[in-house]
Formats: sequence, C-alpha cells, structure tokens
Amino acid sequence: MPISLGPFAGRGITELARDLRAGRTTSAELTELALDAIARLDQQLNAFVTVDADGARAAARRADGELAEGADRGHLHGVPVGVKDLIMVAGLPVTMGSRHFAGHVAETDAECVTRLRRAGAVIVGTTTTHEFAYGPTGDRSATGPSRNPHDPARMSGGSSGGSAAAVAAGLVPLALGTDTGGSVRIPAALCGVAGFKPAYGAIPADGVFPLSRTLDHVGVLAGDERDCLLAYRLLAATAPAEGGHPESGADHGTPAGPPGDAGAARVAWLDPTGLFACDARVVSAVRAAAGPLEEVRLPAGIAGELRETYSAVQSAETAAVHAGRLAEAPELFDPEVLERLRVAFEMPGWRYVRAMDERSRLAEIVGALFDRHDVLALPTVPLTAPPLDRRETRLGGETVAVRAALLALTSPWNVLGLPALTVPAGTVDGLPVGLQLVCPPGREHLLFAAAARRPAPHRAAAPGRDVQP
Amino acid sequence: MPISLGPFAGRGITELARDLRAGRTTSAELTELALDAIARLDQQLNAFVTVDADGARAAARRADGELAEGADRGHLHGVPVGVKDLIMVAGLPVTMGSRHFAGHVAETDAECVTRLRRAGAVIVGTTTTHEFAYGPTGDRSATGPSRNPHDPARMSGGSSGGSAAAVAAGLVPLALGTDTGGSVRIPAALCGVAGFKPAYGAIPADGVFPLSRTLDHVGVLAGDERDCLLAYRLLAATAPAEGGHPESGADHGTPAGPPGDAGAARVAWLDPTGLFACDARVVSAVRAAAGPLEEVRLPAGIAGELRETYSAVQSAETAAVHAGRLAEAPELFDPEVLERLRVAFEMPGWRYVRAMDERSRLAEIVGALFDRHDVLALPTVPLTAPPLDRRETRLGGETVAVRAALLALTSPWNVLGLPALTVPAGTVDGLPVGLQLVCPPGREHLLFAAAARRPAPHRAAAPGRDVQP
Repeated sequence: MPISLGPFAGRGITELARDLRAGRTTSAELTELALDAIARLDQQLNAFVTVDADGARAAARRADGELAEGADRGHLHGVPVGVKDLIMVAGLPVTMGSRHFAGHVAETDAECVTRLRRAGAVIVGTTTTHEFAYGPTGDRSATGPSRNPHDPARMSGGSSGGSAAAVAAGLVPLALGTDTGGSVRIPAALCGVAGFKPAYGAIPADGVFPLSRTLDHVGVLAGDERDCLLAYRLLAATAPAEGGHPESGADHGTPAGPPGDAGAARVAWLDPTGLFACDARVVSAVRAAAGPLEEVRLPAGIAGELRETYSAVQSAETAAVHAGRLAEAPELFDPEVLERLRVAFEMPGWRYVRAMDERSRLAEIVGALFDRHDVLALPTVPLTAPPLDRRETRLGGETVAVRAALLALTSPWNVLGLPALTVPAGTVDGLPVGLQLVCPPGREHLLFAAAARRPAPHRAAAPGRDVQP
Repeated sequence: MPISLGPFAGRGITELARDLRAGRTTSAELTELALDAIARLDQQLNAFVTVDADGARAAARRADGELAEGADRGHLHGVPVGVKDLIMVAGLPVTMGSRHFAGHVAETDAECVTRLRRAGAVIVGTTTTHEFAYGPTGDRSATGPSRNPHDPARMSGGSSGGSAAAVAAGLVPLALGTDTGGSVRIPAALCGVAGFKPAYGAIPADGVFPLSRTLDHVGVLAGDERDCLLAYRLLAATAPAEGGHPESGADHGTPAGPPGDAGAARVAWLDPTGLFACDARVVSAVRAAAGPLEEVRLPAGIAGELRETYSAVQSAETAAVHAGRLAEAPELFDPEVLERLRVAFEMPGWRYVRAMDERSRLAEIVGALFDRHDVLALPTVPLTAPPLDRRETRLGGETVAVRAALLALTSPWNVLGLPALTVPAGTVDGLPVGLQLVCPPGREHLLFAAAARRPAPHRAAAPGRDVQP
C-alpha cells in the first residue's frame, strides 16, 4: 500500500550537510536525486505543482561553487527544498491551489524564501496546497489533491499537504508550509513527518498569500525535529550567522536557546479528550510515545471558547481576503471552498471584535498551565488519515465532521500564537500518528529537547520504515 | 433667547488660578458659585445629571487647605469641573445616559478622574451624555436632552452635550468629555466653547464606558484653547510635575512642546466641501476666523473612504459592547439608539477587518498633507446648531441627515487618531461656529500656537458676549 520511497527518506539535513562537506556528494547530485524522484514517484502523490529543474540546477551549481570556495552558508547550503504553492518564489508560478490564480507568476520572493536562498537552499519546486490554504484535508485544490504516501487513497491532510507528502516520501528533505489552524502540523502528523509552527511572527509572513492574518504562521516540515529546528533557526534569524554553521559542532541538532536547561523541560500531558472526541487508539499510541507524564486538563468550557474564537477570527479575516473574488468570480472557487467562504461572509463584525478580546483572556487562562510546566504534550490529530473526500467520521462514539476533527487539537495554539511541534509517534493500523508539543514563546529549546527525549521505539517516520535520528 | 450666564463665563482657569493664589477667592467660594449657578440655571439646559454638592465642598476644603499650606498641585487646583456621565467617578451615579444603568454607581475612578483629583480639581457633578455616547445630537438620553445655551430650543450637540453646555453657560470653567467621532468638538463648536481631542491614547480611556474602542478619545472642554491646553497637559501627564505650575511663569498659556517654533506653525485651509456639504455662511465665517491661508484638498474619493471606514469600525465595535443588552433588554434603549444598534449588528466582520487595514492606508494618504503643513484648518461642524430632534436639514443645496452632517468634519480625525482642537470662530445668525485645527501627534504645540494666533474679532465664546483671552 505505501509507495516506494525517494532518496531523502531517512536521510536528514544533518547527514546531507556532512556528506556535502566531506565530498561524499554535491548539491548538483542531491538536486538530480530530488528531480528524478519527483519524476518517478510524484504521479501517485501529487505533492508538487511546479518543478523548477533549471532553476534548481543553477542554484545547486552556485551552492557547490560556494562550498568549494569555502563560503559556507550553513546547514541548508545545497539542500533541495520544496515551497508551498502560496509562498512567492520570484519567477515561479504560484497558484494558491486556485483557478483564480491559474498561470499567475510570482514577481518577488517572500521573505522566508529570501532567507532560504540566503541560507543556500536549492528550491526544486512548489508543493500542493488546499485551495487558498482554506481546509485541513488537502483534497480540494485546482491542482488536484495531495495524497498520503502511506496510502495514496487517503488524505495527506492540509493545507500544506504537498509539503508533508514530499518530505514523507523522501522527495526532498525539507519543505516550507503555512499553518493557520494546523496546516503544517496536521499533514505532517498524517504523513508521519515532523512539522514546526513557530511563535506568531517568528518567521515573517511577508510574501505569503494570506488566509487569516492574525492566525497565519510560516512553518517547516522535515523528517525529524532536529531538521525542523535547523531550518527554523535559519528562517527566523535576521542575520545569516544566527543560524549556526554545520562545522561549528555546537549547532548539530542541539536545541535553540540556553543549552544548560535543555534537558530539564517539565512536560505535562494535556488530556486531548477535553478538546475534542478522539480515537482511543491514537491517544494511547501518542501517550506511549510521550512517555510517563503528569496529566493536566483545560478548565471547563475553554475548549469550546477556543474553537469559537478561532472560527470568528478566521472567518472574518478570510472573507476580507476574498471579498473581491467572491463578488466577481465565485464560480472559480472549488464548490466546497465557496460554500465555506459564503458562511465566513456572514460572520458579524461584533463577534470578530469580541473574539479578538477573547484571545487575550484565553491566553491568560491557558498560560496558567505553563506556570508549572514548560511544554504540553498531546496528539497532533485525534485520528489517522481519512480516505480522500471523506467528510464525516465516527470518533469516540460520536459522528463528527472530519474538518473539525482534524483542526481540533492544533487550532488552539494558533489562536494563542504559541510554538507547536509535531513529531512522528508511531502508527495505528499502519497509519502515522503525531505527538504534538506546545510551549510559550521563549521556551522553544525545551520543546525541542522534549521531542528529542521521547522513547525511540515510538518514532515511526517515513512510510514502511522507522527512522532513528 | 440665550440664557443668562453663570460665574465662569469669560473667567478661565488661568485667571482662577491667579485669583486663588492671590487670596482673591477660595476653592470653597468657586465651588459655591458653581453649585449655585447650576441650581439657578441648569433647569433650562439639563447640562448636569448628578450634582455632588457634599463631595465638591469637601474637595474644595481640601484644596484650600493644601494651597494655604503651599502644596500647589497646579492650574486645576481648587477649580470646579464637570465630568461626562459615562466616565467613572467613584461613589457617584454613572448612567451612560441609559435606562440600562439607572441607579448604577461607579465603584472606582476612571484614570482621567484619578488624574483630575491628583491635579486638585473639584468635581461638582456629572454632565449629560447622549445615550451611551452613541449620537452627535445630544438629544437622546435617559436623563433628557442637553440644550444649547445660545438657544435652549436647539441641540447642544453631542455626545458630550452636557459638558459643552455647562462650560458655555459658565456653570464650570472646565469639563471632561469623550470623542469617538466628534463628541467633544461638535458640542463645543455648537455651544461656542473650545474642545480638544488629543491624539489616540494620550489621555487613557480606562474607566470610561466604551463606545468604539479604537476610535474613543478622552478630551477636554473649556472657554478657550489655553484652558484646554492646561487641562490636557495635566491629564496626559503621567507624573504631577509634568503639567507645570501656575507660579512657574513659563507655563502660563504657552503651548506644550518646543517653545522655539511655537509661532512658526505652517497652517493650511482644508476645503471642507471636499468632505461634506456645508453651509456657505459657516464656511465663510470660519475661514475669516482662520485668517489668510494656503488651501489644500483631500485627494478624490478619500472623504468617502474615511466615512465608510469610520462607519465599519464604529458599528462593529459598538455592537460588540452592547450585544448582551440588545439580546436581553432591547426595550431599555431609546428607540433611535436601538435602531442604530440593530443596524450596527449587521456590519459584517470582513468589512471591519478591511476597514482596520484601510486606516493605515488612509493615514499615509492624509499624512502626506502634513509634509508641507503642520496644521490643517477647517470648520468643526458644517452647520449651526439645529433645533432639538431635527433629523434632516438642507445644506449646500442638498437634503442631508443631521447626524451625518454633524460628524462629517470631525470623524476623519478619529479614524486617523490625530489631535484636533475646536475654538470659537464667531457666529452665524447668532449661533456659534467652530474653527477646527488638526495636526499630527507631536505637533500639538503648533496646533495651540495656531489657535492663539487667530484674529481676535472672530473669537466669540460664551452666549451673548465675546471673550478676548
């Protein structure tokens, strides 16, 4: 059932960086491996929208030249990456997964792409997004649904479904995504890779097509948490040196922040059933992956308030983005996306104003959970990847909407702007599940330390194999 | 037609401060003058809602005691003031002009009241507000309409109508108001006094019942611009000393900010007909009061965008404040206020989101007018005070809504958060008109300097007489 894997499955950025500097490979070679794998394998996945073979080869030659001259840009130097198809890459088509932007070409690089290039990364192409990033299923896009490498009949999840599928299938070792309610973490979890949504604003969203401006985050997807951290540090850094260099030793996979307390993260298990109905087998697998932890719960009523707040904010902000298109060419939207937009247009202004107030109040209430703990652990998604186009499912004895279920455990952290990481946490019926770790801004080093500490047997990653980083 | 005047008509704060320190009067005496004038004259005006004779007398005794001991709190020390009936004064009823708050007593002082008390002011009572400050006419209030001292059959304007009428009739030399779209400046202009709405946030709004949080400003009303400036400096100051003392000389009526360039304000006339239909006689009178000035215009279309932006922001934010009351006890609202609230509830969230974006764009466009000028001059209101309850009028050949006309020249500066001052600028048919001066934050000293420089013959102030400051 799982597809065959590409060359980067189980071959992470740290290893690639070492091989490049030891002369065991070149960026040109890695780029050809990526292009070849995409050509061979992506028909089953539809992870990529546009492949820029010429641009990638040119970037790889430059990267090899610079490395040969000793001009080392750090861990991503010469590494092939994919970029979600709503992040501007100058000169490449950018469709937002929508017929509204068929044939549209980006004129300038998004800020995160500028930073990728500055770090020497080789952009091989753009990855499938749910139309306008407006959906966590990944199966409504003018460029077709992205598919799950563990079972191409199932959802990749979304909206950064192409990025997750591309990394999970080993087509590239790293991809950029965006996350408004879980759009990096949901597909990462369903496809069995790691995904990191930093604190709000930590990676600038300039040049990224908006979904909901105060909830939108730029994030990264990679094979494991170490590679997410490496990429995050380079993308969040305002100067190249801040990202660290592969030769400096100290930066090989160690967390950001004060190194002294990296192992001292106080982690609590947040009962996910207080947020939404959950598949008990998913909860059990993820909890085992998290190891023994003290359990905490959200105060009564807070889960519902987080969901309502998310909905009010996202609806008003998304409708504001699409008002012109809805009035002028509604027929160009996918019907499901159109229906959701029409509902979003009905969100009253006063509810938006109240929801923005609620965010401060909820931040205080949830923030109290971090008085005694640095990191909260919970499943990323309360179920495994549903079949493509599935819209309702049974979960914990209830019939629930697939979309609501997918978003339920991730969107609260967008409302609050908190850093949240998903890492592979084994499988249920052969399908990946994700362990989500959440922390207050400033404690990211503890978040990554907690991820690195989890018991090894539970780290399933790429389809059909376990990767031990 | 005009009512008889109270003891503070033409007797401003600077004069009172000198008299108090020269032993020519006491705070107790001034307070009795105010209480007596209110008792005698306010039945015609309805400027006051609650008079706190005991509290005022006690405060006056304290003020006299402190001054006798040489503890001088500055220009407001011992001066009687009125406070709009939606600004919390601990222990006093605060009704917001609404039956929803009949009998409600404030538990703590608003921050601006704390600062008033710190400055030694004597609070004699609360002044009439349009219900929930939601209207510029001043004639819809559970505590009755406030009336214009120049003609009690006419509107005071609103929503700070009681404060304007109280100052114009000489009942108190100073009153606090709030200004969301012109609620300080409109009644000040219609009643013939000065009113200053500082930059957004310059006087904290904590403890003030909100109308529209991002448009609400706390402001001051007094006989002339010098008294507005004195009060503003004490209320905006975070420490008592910043307000300056009457004995220091340098602070007697000189503007805030760098003294060197106070006379060098570059003032332009902003053509008000680019904003709204205007009574030509009002424009002519105000322009004469402003003196000869270079004329500038808003770029085409901007006036309409400013109005739409104001409406979207104000509607959503006001509806958010009143959602609970509208659901639970709509019958307690004045019918006109209720009708406006129902319309406000329909404002879609996406339009609010867009309007908040527009504010930044409009700030840039209008900001360009300040590249070559420090201050813009225009009428405060494009007509004189209409009769109470009048809702439509002829203006510049059109039939217009009175509410829209009253707000048209003031609300743009709330959208942009700019400091705006109104000063008396003569009369038309015996009714006052106001000259409005607007500047970017940081140039307030030039604004007040420009006001002080205007030709003396055009400075009509209290009803029935001219005051030459």
